[in-house]
Amino acid sequence: MELGYRGNILRVNLSSDKISIERPDEIFYRKYIGGEGFIAYYLLKEVPKGVNPLNYKNNLIFANGPLTGTSIPCTGRNSIGAKSPLTGGFGESEVGGYWGAELKHAGFDAVIVEGKANKPVYLSIQDEEIEIRDASHLWGKSTGETQKDIIRELDDKYIRVACIGVAAENLVKYACIINDYRNAAGRTGMGAVMGSKNLKAIAVRGHNKPKVNNKEKLRAILKESYETFKEYSQFFTFGTGGNRMEEFALSGNLPTRNFRDGEFKYAKEIDPAIISEKINLGRDTCYACPIRCKKVVNISNPINIDPLYGGPEYETIAAFGSNCGTNDIVAISKANEICNKTSLDTISAGVAISFAMECYENKILTDEDTNGLKLNFGNSQAMLSLLEKIVNREGLGDILAEGVKKAAEKIGKNSQKFAIHVKGQEVPMHEPRLKQGMGIGYALSPTGAEHMANLHDTAIANKERIKNFASFNIFDALTLDDLSAKKVKSVISFTNWRVVENSLLFCFFSPYTMNQENNLLKTVTGWDTSTWELMKYGERITTMARAFNIREGFNKNDDWLPERFFEPHTTGALAEKPINSDKFKNARDIYYKMMGWTEDGIPTKMKLEELDIEWVKT
Amino acid sequence: MELGYRGNILRVNLSSDKISIERPDEIFYRKYIGGEGFIAYYLLKEVPKGVNPLNYKNNLIFANGPLTGTSIPCTGRNSIGAKSPLTGGFGESEVGGYWGAELKHAGFDAVIVEGKANKPVYLSIQDEEIEIRDASHLWGKSTGETQKDIIRELDDKYIRVACIGVAAENLVKYACIINDYRNAAGRTGMGAVMGSKNLKAIAVRGHNKPKVNNKEKLRAILKESYETFKEYSQFFTFGTGGNRMEEFALSGNLPTRNFRDGEFKYAKEIDPAIISEKINLGRDTCYACPIRCKKVVNISNPINIDPLYGGPEYETIAAFGSNCGTNDIVAISKANEICNKTSLDTISAGVAISFAMECYENKILTDEDTNGLKLNFGNSQAMLSLLEKIVNREGLGDILAEGVKKAAEKIGKNSQKFAIHVKGQEVPMHEPRLKQGMGIGYALSPTGAEHMANLHDTAIANKERIKNFASFNIFDALTLDDLSAKKVKSVISFTNWRVVENSLLFCFFSPYTMNQENNLLKTVTGWDTSTWELMKYGERITTMARAFNIREGFNKNDDWLPERFFEPHTTGALAEKPINSDKFKNARDIYYKMMGWTEDGIPTKMKLEELDIEWVKT
Repeated sequence: MELGYRGNILRVNLSSDKISIERPDEIFYRKYIGGEGFIAYYLLKEVPKGVNPLNYKNNLIFANGPLTGTSIPCTGRNSIGAKSPLTGGFGESEVGGYWGAELKHAGFDAVIVEGKANKPVYLSIQDEEIEIRDASHLWGKSTGETQKDIIRELDDKYIRVACIGVAAENLVKYACIINDYRNAAGRTGMGAVMGSKNLKAIAVRGHNKPKVNNKEKLRAILKESYETFKEYSQFFTFGTGGNRMEEFALSGNLPTRNFRDGEFKYAKEIDPAIISEKINLGRDTCYACPIRCKKVVNISNPINIDPLYGGPEYETIAAFGSNCGTNDIVAISKANEICNKTSLDTISAGVAISFAMECYENKILTDEDTNGLKLNFGNSQAMLSLLEKIVNREGLGDILAEGVKKAAEKIGKNSQKFAIHVKGQEVPMHEPRLKQGMGIGYALSPTGAEHMANLHDTAIANKERIKNFASFNIFDALTLDDLSAKKVKSVISFTNWRVVENSLLFCFFSPYTMNQENNLLKTVTGWDTSTWELMKYGERITTMARAFNIREGFNKNDDWLPERFFEPHTTGALAEKPINSDKFKNARDIYYKMMGWTEDGIPTKMKLEELDIEWVKT
Repeated sequence: MELGYRGNILRVNLSSDKISIERPDEIFYRKYIGGEGFIAYYLLKEVPKGVNPLNYKNNLIFANGPLTGTSIPCTGRNSIGAKSPLTGGFGESEVGGYWGAELKHAGFDAVIVEGKANKPVYLSIQDEEIEIRDASHLWGKSTGETQKDIIRELDDKYIRVACIGVAAENLVKYACIINDYRNAAGRTGMGAVMGSKNLKAIAVRGHNKPKVNNKEKLRAILKESYETFKEYSQFFTFGTGGNRMEEFALSGNLPTRNFRDGEFKYAKEIDPAIISEKINLGRDTCYACPIRCKKVVNISNPINIDPLYGGPEYETIAAFGSNCGTNDIVAISKANEICNKTSLDTISAGVAISFAMECYENKILTDEDTNGLKLNFGNSQAMLSLLEKIVNREGLGDILAEGVKKAAEKIGKNSQKFAIHVKGQEVPMHEPRLKQGMGIGYALSPTGAEHMANLHDTAIANKERIKNFASFNIFDALTLDDLSAKKVKSVISFTNWRVVENSLLFCFFSPYTMNQENNLLKTVTGWDTSTWELMKYGERITTMARAFNIREGFNKNDDWLPERFFEPHTTGALAEKPINSDKFKNARDIYYKMMGWTEDGIPTKMKLEELDIEWVKT
């Protein structure tokens, strides 16, 4: 193999304080790429089977991709993984901001955190200077204060910090990790793992740009793509959800009142484009990215919302808005601030609250249970109060802090039917009765219900990005409720591609075609990779994540949606249009076959050999 | 889809004299590409199930690829297909020379010949002037005379001719079609189909170079590849087999005495490099190709051999040489001349004769059967005499003209064990006991035993060409006798790639990587294809060819090697090293699974949908 790309992996054991640097062979880098690929590799290799995710034997992995830290737009992300305390299976989440690039500039492609510190610590990485430092004075502080204090302490304003807040310290199962004040590695509870290790933060500072194999070619590609980005950026003037909320509501895509209802009359009132002045909407971005999709809000009336923590993304608006039955954009923005400040996943938190609201409206939870909170849908003040209780694990909040699956088990009384999750992870803000391909992805994703490595059936018309597959009808010619083998093919193809992007750390919003991504990878690494190799990476990494879950005891019964989605909305665009469970089961079985898994969904020895990962056990 | 490539398909019905030109949508071109892809499409769509291959209802398809006729080296080939009279299944063969490029310059991507003329005819295509012309005066003539006569008749020395000789007129089941005097579409009996239609030749002349979407980029790519070709060309100073024969014999790769023996002492004496002066070895080439791999011999002593018909390729040297037990290079060259002159496949003809020789040595055939020919191995004069008898269907030659499978059925007396064929097609000159991956390919190829879309296990070290898969260990790290899932993966991956090349019409000897081939395709067509799409084409076309065979009654029992290969050589490198039949069966079953076929080897509905060819019936 031609020489090209090879980096450093930092390993830190918090039990023994041992710090070491590893330099795997280049073939390791080409085979497992980075991000989700590294995470799948290290979880399978190093995390013991059956371990409690909050035990010191779980590892927490921060991983960059081969392009992180270069000047390529849409690569300013990093990935964080561990065995998930929320699902008990494969845990992984990507996050934007500047932290990953800074880590790369310090010389590292990944940080593997092992063990558990016996008191709060933080890790300082400043180029080759690695230090485990006391964080007792930071414990209990918000993510913002933590970052500011560390910057002050280390006396370098360019230091970037990934850290946790109180929710993660309290081991809320869907606690997240926050990079640079307002970027969340939201899903699968990575913050709780960080909290369980007594690791408050990782501060990074680096001074060396990564090597680019062919700088001239990279400059040419970037110059060529300039116009694309200029044009593309316009779509994000109002951030995610901008000018889309009513359309979503009308089509039935907007989850409403815990995914119960088919209509939400107030969609415009939570549309960031329409009420942008009310919240003083601004934009922020990630390292080297001209798109600027990230929201900032600035509100001082009727309450104060700290702009440091950004503004609510589409997922957050829907989770705390329509899905909790409220149109109170200020309360939604406040919920966002609370989540980012305390490191809590907005999707899971919103769905946990909407679950409680539906339980309350059905008298499964009483005023006694809620300690007096009137948890009716739409009561945004009660919503914010309950959110604080989750963060602090108070009363009902302590139960909801376990995620809706376990909360429903604890509450009982038929509350399970209101627990909208897959594999323990709360469902994101895309209605699977509308986007049934995404429904398949929810059921099959190794992290439980997730929307980032999944087919957005409504976006299949984006022909520009998919022109490298034009003769395969992969992402078009399908209706939204199609559950045929063709739809399954779309889900698998798109998922595999997204998993590659989650390993190369291309953002979901990157406008590149697969050929362009491959060219960028070639230019930086010097490897002569092909898109065929890329898609095979995706299949490999998806299969590794699957194998991890099988090892941890998941079976085909876990590849299923909440029963709610097989029942119709009573009104709205999807009235009388539930998912057909027979067709859905069939689609699941096709998914297994197409992936080369057994009829029970277990990767076969043959498939593992084909993917050159015969070392993986299932 | 972006506008790019769209061409013309000429349809000629010889029963009705109807001539028409079709212009399919661009998506058809992008989906079925050309060459083998077009052939698979038109055979499935238009040739009735169960038809006798020599019936007028069989179609004969001449197909170019999207790059044919451009200045790109290694694309000077065309493909010819029909239902095979030799196997009764999918028939297809590629051929070099200048004819395909000329057809493209006349404006056509393919010619579909339907029906049967009531007297000998030839087809003249001169740009838009298409004419069916009388060929009564050409019937019975050699391929060389035919071409010369047509050039004289049409009065244009630049006319290119694809035609048949006497063997094809006599419907020898492995008759071939000859382009430009010495380039053979050798395999699967396409010449017999042409003969059955009373079509002596297709003469072509064109004056328009095909459109290239990005000429400037193409020039840059070609300039860049100039050195590669200069270097690469050196390997072909002595053509195929040059300086390799003894190595092949010592490793056991050189088929000897009807694949019976493990040693051939005279390998050097048939090595084109070593005896090049004896045969006055020269080189020829195809359209736009600087490699110049094709042999020309010039011999006048002890017999005259017409240089017009070229010289013996490796396959021919082995088939008429070691495999008939002779080291007589002049006789081998003569056999080559006879075959090209009369349009006969040298591999099948050689193996038919070696079959007869082994029958003779085992007294299954007597002097009476052979009409006095002493058919011992090594009797090169008897070999040439028998070859003439096959051409003219005289005596034993008439029986052998049906191919060894049917000949053995006719001869009986346990002769079947000497009939070395798969699905009725004689095995080429690569010992599957050595190259066991090729053995899998022999058994599974839709055309019966074939070596051109197959893994050459010994060539898996060509790392330059496969660097686009470097992280997949696809073509290396395997022993020759490995029959694991990994080997099957290699066979399938390489076969799919080769099938794409047989559709794009890249030569087997092209030095391009898959990325380079994709870039060339993009540059010419303007399509933004990916290598992933390319590999999917391969899978699609392989599956279509398989579906055709299933439709025509083939089943898994046909996916098997002659029993000989499960028995050891008694001497030589492979002594006591037969193929293990249990492992081989397992490999076959893995092949089915990896292709997404049922355990009986039938493409599933799901796989057809995935490949976007749900119209295909199995």
